[in-house]
Amino acid sequence: MLPESAPYCPEPLQDILEDVSNCIIPGLTHWQSPNFFAYFHANASTAGFLGEMLCSGFNVVGFNWISSPAATELESIVLDWMGKMLKLPSSFLFSGTGGGVLHGSTCEAVVCVLAAARDKALKELGGWENITKLVVYASDQTHFTFQKAAKLVGIPPSNSRLIETSFSTGFSLSPENLRFVIEDDIKSGLVPLFLCATIGTTPSGAVDPIAELGKVAMEFKLWLHIDAVYAGSGCICPELRHYLDGVELANSISMNPHKWFLTNMDCCCLWIKEPKLLVDSLSTDPEILRNNASKSKAVVDYKDWQIALSRRFRALKLWVVIRRYGLANLMYHIRSDIAMAKRFEALVGEDERFEIVVARKFALVCFRLKPKVEEEDLNCKLVEAINSSGRAFVSHAVLSGIYVIRCAIGTTLTQQHHVDALWKLIQDKAQSLLM
Amino acid sequence: MLPESAPYCPEPLQDILEDVSNCIIPGLTHWQSPNFFAYFHANASTAGFLGEMLCSGFNVVGFNWISSPAATELESIVLDWMGKMLKLPSSFLFSGTGGGVLHGSTCEAVVCVLAAARDKALKELGGWENITKLVVYASDQTHFTFQKAAKLVGIPPSNSRLIETSFSTGFSLSPENLRFVIEDDIKSGLVPLFLCATIGTTPSGAVDPIAELGKVAMEFKLWLHIDAVYAGSGCICPELRHYLDGVELANSISMNPHKWFLTNMDCCCLWIKEPKLLVDSLSTDPEILRNNASKSKAVVDYKDWQIALSRRFRALKLWVVIRRYGLANLMYHIRSDIAMAKRFEALVGEDERFEIVVARKFALVCFRLKPKVEEEDLNCKLVEAINSSGRAFVSHAVLSGIYVIRCAIGTTLTQQHHVDALWKLIQDKAQSLLM
Repeated sequence: MLPESAPYCPEPLQDILEDVSNCIIPGLTHWQSPNFFAYFHANASTAGFLGEMLCSGFNVVGFNWISSPAATELESIVLDWMGKMLKLPSSFLFSGTGGGVLHGSTCEAVVCVLAAARDKALKELGGWENITKLVVYASDQTHFTFQKAAKLVGIPPSNSRLIETSFSTGFSLSPENLRFVIEDDIKSGLVPLFLCATIGTTPSGAVDPIAELGKVAMEFKLWLHIDAVYAGSGCICPELRHYLDGVELANSISMNPHKWFLTNMDCCCLWIKEPKLLVDSLSTDPEILRNNASKSKAVVDYKDWQIALSRRFRALKLWVVIRRYGLANLMYHIRSDIAMAKRFEALVGEDERFEIVVARKFALVCFRLKPKVEEEDLNCKLVEAINSSGRAFVSHAVLSGIYVIRCAIGTTLTQQHHVDALWKLIQDKAQSLLM
Repeated sequence: MLPESAPYCPEPLQDILEDVSNCIIPGLTHWQSPNFFAYFHANASTAGFLGEMLCSGFNVVGFNWISSPAATELESIVLDWMGKMLKLPSSFLFSGTGGGVLHGSTCEAVVCVLAAARDKALKELGGWENITKLVVYASDQTHFTFQKAAKLVGIPPSNSRLIETSFSTGFSLSPENLRFVIEDDIKSGLVPLFLCATIGTTPSGAVDPIAELGKVAMEFKLWLHIDAVYAGSGCICPELRHYLDGVELANSISMNPHKWFLTNMDCCCLWIKEPKLLVDSLSTDPEILRNNASKSKAVVDYKDWQIALSRRFRALKLWVVIRRYGLANLMYHIRSDIAMAKRFEALVGEDERFEIVVARKFALVCFRLKPKVEEEDLNCKLVEAINSSGRAFVSHAVLSGIYVIRCAIGTTLTQQHHVDALWKLIQDKAQSLLM
């Protein structure tokens, strides 16, 4: 529908906007629709949008402190705000002995902490050739980008241990199993490096037991990173905060306000206990950026906390979101999504043709039509029937070989009647399939 | 000036905007000021801003084709548009045998192509332990993030060769010197992997001789990446395109429209001849994202072309910019900046207290006050005097031990009278220093 080459002459704005309406919008997957229940939602809000407009309007590049002091200062302040809302120990905050930074994605954040852990270990081991001995650990429910990140920083793919989980632990990582695998690796002459634990896994919202895993990590001197990408936002509510118990044993933790915290893409918070280790691994000191503020070591130069040099002023949008909603309304947002998920879970439970496959912890419900033996792809067909109706969008996961339908409740605009309509749609499509 | 914790209750928009005016804006470095001549500029435009608003409003996450088909399709189309404007060979375009992708920064792009080159080499060498044998090459003028990227992907820092350049070659990388270093490495049992050549280096705008370097790269089977981060935008003008001659010998090339192409942050174009190699290195196939479109292999899943899973719809802004300006006005933008730089260079040349240190190629002028022996930090003082006036912002570089002042002309709003005022300011401050 669009020409193969760029126009030579300027085009009227009207034509461009018409093409947006006619060629772009019909081809989008509508992540902001209240009927979007797939993957994890990407919350947008007018507050977040305003923050993005300010960011794009100022268009400053805060790679170091001097290149835009307020951009760095606001980012430090907002990371402390967010950390305090999550009741992180002061060892993760600038007001304590740690600090935080905004990345674009969890994968970038994990690449950076993996590099920090790697370089610390290689220094202690005395040579880069030891990179092939380093081993990283996670459960088989951990986000798949963890393996990608480990490979990116040069850990041999054969040294990525994805420890099997099962229904018996609700798909959370067993500290005992972790210990067995670590001990085996040590016997083989390998060096355990890094453990990634998850609060709210992508397939089913499972929670790894941080406190117990933290003890194992400390015993074997592993870097413990907590990936709270989705459910971290929920932990601002006192009734959910217990999932973070043991966070004081971690070296770093990340979560994405762009998922469930009303902040437009992209925004990932990373806190780290020893920012020095991140800076040791990622810092550069080119002549072209030398300045008195950096020399004084009294300021944060965020270029040394991330992959890229250039960076957008992302802190603005998170700051506007937090102020415009306040902790009170942010908690309300989380709680109302969870209430809707609870009700959806109850509706599914009441219909005997269906079953809840794993217990719900946050606002993600994993369920399926109970299959008869001869209908193995029944739930896959049901997902296709729901999605091809164009009235809602859900996605799926496979848990211990069982295909489940995922209903993630939490777009900014989703209300009870949208969830009720989804359930009615599911029932109708199931009826047709079962006939 | 801001509280230490987040507010519990929502705050009025008016209060937030007042804080933006009173606490944020005074602490920004004003990258959009027409008097900003430091580093390289970060072009913003109303067209780019509109694109960002659309991106932030739709807030879709196009990690694979199915998660927002139009986002992937438009990105592919715009990368072909941009590639055609630069007269890249069809081997880099989707309409040929290659393809392009938008990243947030050059460093991310380079991390990805380095990983692709690394994984291809490790496969050929037959084992991950060979990672310590891989060697990467660049000139000592190459952007410092290249070394950071190489270290990030696990290349030992001792295997980064930064080949010395000098005034004699205008700070461009000598193919002969490159060959010597490569041959030495081979003799030592190392494996040459990757060469990064630059079109328009950050310190002085130097251009590496792509055609000759390409021959060396082919001879030794190095992956040749061209970093045209700044000057690539200029190469849309026929009179500057010759700097890209030899690009057909490269494996990949990147440039940043967010520098000199009127596109708001962040936007980096990466083209690659064999996208399969990128995908081989970076792809993931988690159950949770499986879908018929991906299975068919008939679509592009951009998650496999970058570090992160999630991604913003950046193509919109580049598409709006190109259409709203047209090639004609984009060339006008480049040419008028170059004309202003030429005039500035002439003004400096006419004042016998000053000298042009390296010949200007684009819109970056490197000059200095001719120092008397006893005034070694004269130019450093001059930079401080200019910047502390608050009337303009310049930066510096050190070329073969010589401290030079960099004047990069090219913010969206810079006009002739701003450049003339800068020159007058420089002359005044120099006068005071020399008195």
